[in-house]
Amino acid sequence: MDNYSSKLLEQAVDELAKLPGIGRRTALRLALHLLKQDVNDVEILGETIIKLRQEIKHCDICHNISDSERCSICSDSNRDQGIICVVQDIRDVMAIENTGQFKGVYHVLGGLISPLDGIGPSDLSIDELFDRLKEDETKELIMALNPTVEGDTTNFFIYRKLKDNNIKITTIARGVAIGDELEYADEVTLGRSIANRIPYEQSVKENK
Amino acid sequence: MDNYSSKLLEQAVDELAKLPGIGRRTALRLALHLLKQDVNDVEILGETIIKLRQEIKHCDICHNISDSERCSICSDSNRDQGIICVVQDIRDVMAIENTGQFKGVYHVLGGLISPLDGIGPSDLSIDELFDRLKEDETKELIMALNPTVEGDTTNFFIYRKLKDNNIKITTIARGVAIGDELEYADEVTLGRSIANRIPYEQSVKENK
Repeated sequence: MDNYSSKLLEQAVDELAKLPGIGRRTALRLALHLLKQDVNDVEILGETIIKLRQEIKHCDICHNISDSERCSICSDSNRDQGIICVVQDIRDVMAIENTGQFKGVYHVLGGLISPLDGIGPSDLSIDELFDRLKEDETKELIMALNPTVEGDTTNFFIYRKLKDNNIKITTIARGVAIGDELEYADEVTLGRSIANRIPYEQSVKENK
Repeated sequence: MDNYSSKLLEQAVDELAKLPGIGRRTALRLALHLLKQDVNDVEILGETIIKLRQEIKHCDICHNISDSERCSICSDSNRDQGIICVVQDIRDVMAIENTGQFKGVYHVLGGLISPLDGIGPSDLSIDELFDRLKEDETKELIMALNPTVEGDTTNFFIYRKLKDNNIKITTIARGVAIGDELEYADEVTLGRSIANRIPYEQSVKENK
């Protein structure tokens, strides 16, 4: 049992240690760091965290987090509302946005179907995706879920429900990463990248 | 440049990434974790951090952090006020308190003398230590600073100022850690542990 010589410090360590990946030793280091900072700076940190949780919203349409009822991507008239990229969470939206390659819109599921963890379709925004497809004039659904058992299950669940609709369903390409050497690629990835080979002219065009 | 699709989220990541050892990627993970927590829990975290910084005090006597003007160790009449253990910071107090072996009191310097970092004796609570020695009936000063150049410099600075006083100055023993094998100990530690050998009877008594 540690002796913190201060209830305030002990409480702060207790709270910080609840954060993922932060043990009591790191929490103590963070608390002692905060004690050395300007009072104003620490107040800003605390208030920013509280405000984030209190005021953040989820976009009515795509369920991405947002400062307003409709996120900046869904309200951007320059983006193609007919192409919806389905992702697990907001980090995937950020990763795809950072590429600058996608001009459609998103749908954030908020997780993946995982019976072992007790997560079914009703725990995710899958029904909202289907509702959205009825209303919108959706041309294509790009499934961009992680290549795990849960991702494959979720892909298949959505595909089965929609296969009689007139919507094109695609998945993002898996293959050897650009810059990676073949001999170090894992077998499954390399295998898939051979099976899904593309015409040479297309790969040259992509690199331009 | 990352696209957070929310100013609130971006601000929270900015603030969290100011913490030591936390980069922007970890800060984002923490912020997204907070978004999934109960509003009350996040409010408690934010308020606890702010309260810690606003309300914490430093003990008038030993400069350890404390919830009141005098810390629980200095106000404990069962502890020997004549033996003062000089340490760098509050983590060292905690480490020594956790051993349960020390029944004296502490003096927290708040750092070590380090000319390269522009830290001189006046930046630390060294004058306060000297003042304390004049007033108190101090019998012994135990120097428990880290064995670095800065620690040795600070040790020597204090020793030189006090050598004409009638106070016994000791340093904590350095040697091969209990449970460590000799062949893996570094040469300096092993050398010092031979030079500072103790009578066998004493080591047996200590183990009881």
